[in-house]
Amino acid sequence: MKINVEKCAQILREKDNILILTHAHPDGDTLGCGFALCRALLKLGKKAGVICADDIPGKYDYLYSNMDVFEFEEEYVVAVDVATENLLGSLSDRYGGRIDMCIDHHGTNTEYADKLLLNADAAAACEIILKVIKALGVQIDRDIANCLYTGITTDTGCFRYASATSNTYRAAAELIDLGADNGTINRVMFETKTKTYAALERLAIEGMEFFCDDRVCVITITQDMYARTGSNEQETEAIAPLTRQTEGVEIGLTIREKEDGSCKCSVRTFDSVDAARLASSFGGGGHKQAAACRFDCDVRQAKELLVAKCKELLQ
Amino acid sequence: MKINVEKCAQILREKDNILILTHAHPDGDTLGCGFALCRALLKLGKKAGVICADDIPGKYDYLYSNMDVFEFEEEYVVAVDVATENLLGSLSDRYGGRIDMCIDHHGTNTEYADKLLLNADAAAACEIILKVIKALGVQIDRDIANCLYTGITTDTGCFRYASATSNTYRAAAELIDLGADNGTINRVMFETKTKTYAALERLAIEGMEFFCDDRVCVITITQDMYARTGSNEQETEAIAPLTRQTEGVEIGLTIREKEDGSCKCSVRTFDSVDAARLASSFGGGGHKQAAACRFDCDVRQAKELLVAKCKELLQ
Repeated sequence: MKINVEKCAQILREKDNILILTHAHPDGDTLGCGFALCRALLKLGKKAGVICADDIPGKYDYLYSNMDVFEFEEEYVVAVDVATENLLGSLSDRYGGRIDMCIDHHGTNTEYADKLLLNADAAAACEIILKVIKALGVQIDRDIANCLYTGITTDTGCFRYASATSNTYRAAAELIDLGADNGTINRVMFETKTKTYAALERLAIEGMEFFCDDRVCVITITQDMYARTGSNEQETEAIAPLTRQTEGVEIGLTIREKEDGSCKCSVRTFDSVDAARLASSFGGGGHKQAAACRFDCDVRQAKELLVAKCKELLQ
Repeated sequence: MKINVEKCAQILREKDNILILTHAHPDGDTLGCGFALCRALLKLGKKAGVICADDIPGKYDYLYSNMDVFEFEEEYVVAVDVATENLLGSLSDRYGGRIDMCIDHHGTNTEYADKLLLNADAAAACEIILKVIKALGVQIDRDIANCLYTGITTDTGCFRYASATSNTYRAAAELIDLGADNGTINRVMFETKTKTYAALERLAIEGMEFFCDDRVCVITITQDMYARTGSNEQETEAIAPLTRQTEGVEIGLTIREKEDGSCKCSVRTFDSVDAARLASSFGGGGHKQAAACRFDCDVRQAKELLVAKCKELLQ
């Protein structure tokens, strides 16, 4: 059942022992949502916690570093920024089919939760969580503001993408006034490359391939490249935007080899191509200009399948 | 004499045949200011124009593409986003000592103009021009909104730098509501690399040098690198931010060789070092985290001088 912000806040006020699920391969938006909502619920005197199937990259430490942690038996389960249950990764085994509420901004949300608060116009799910926390009547402190700002800035590529609306900018302004440290957060998220990532990025750029009259750019990240640079998959978030930066490119594909030899592809496009549509041809999903899908085959085969599909879409 | 926004608007309302000067090696902020103000003055039925000592890079075409151009004898000269007269480049020969008004956001402004509207807290001079245009009573149309948004986004590295305040974000939100095409502008300014620039950037990254226990990163761009890649100085705006992206770097220096063998250095820092102070040791200036200076010597000597100064500052 779809609900609005007020209903969502009303339900949360009535519940306790709330477990918040974030998506696997976590990003700033799902984590920002999770920890902001958790902090707000704790301020209401409730027990709440956040879990994720995968390790949380170190750069997100500040989202939860000074947050109280409680032991509790979950009574209410909320997924944030999770479009489909399988995006929960290994958590879907335990929580699949029993998620009470989902708060999300993906138009492709499969409505798997009992209650769904969805706003596909929000550039980041954190924009929706900001409204929920205000509706809960919780005073937003600096920590909550930092969580929410983190989600908004990371999901918009630091306000760069067309998805960022005037509401997105206003939400950011409000959070800065409430204490969000925008300069430091953007520095950590966008201006800081570890030495291992810098090395990986250099290899990635060297190996860039172009197809369909240079309208498609492909970067392939292999396990061997991690081994050579000391980098790892957690560090590859910033690679995908590189694929669509060269003049004339309409589709950017980043194919990442997993440890088992299968792979995952991040799709980035501009207005002319619907990234979610391309990804959905391979069972994936996402937004109009940013989407993803998985492949059971190896990177070479995945690349062939993807490039063939791109040819079709660009015709 | 320092003036406020209302006084500035009052004076401009009384004048006609207004010539607007932008700084040499023009960026999005000086051009956005110039063309936004010019468009507003034209809407008031005045004659106005914008000039720059250097060619305007093609990516800024939309700022003035559909703007009316008049022949007129200038009666009032306004400099925008120009901290010192020598930043006017070759225009300083003609206009030095006779600039009637300056609208600027550089704390280092030398007060060379007869009237100065200065707000050093503004992340971009376009934030101030927005206020001036509102005080002029001009309805901001899509073209003016695009000019002002361009200045704000380019001077904040797309809202990335700590200089962007909640007021900056609110100004952007207002401009988007007035029709600014944020998605396209950011794509052109930040997501689009020409093939020649992409090649130059690769050479620049390959040649990165680190000093002072990796706290200083130096990129040197030589005339030879332009020749090898087909790139040119106009395309180097995006290089400077690369210097401070590697973990641990506190000072990023980009030394660009000029055709005559002399050179210019862009300084980028974080909180720990004042970029304007470093640049001012060599006769330059700018902001706390972004500044610039010129050298009569060659790039090798400039690098030695700069690194020696960095050692001193970091001690």
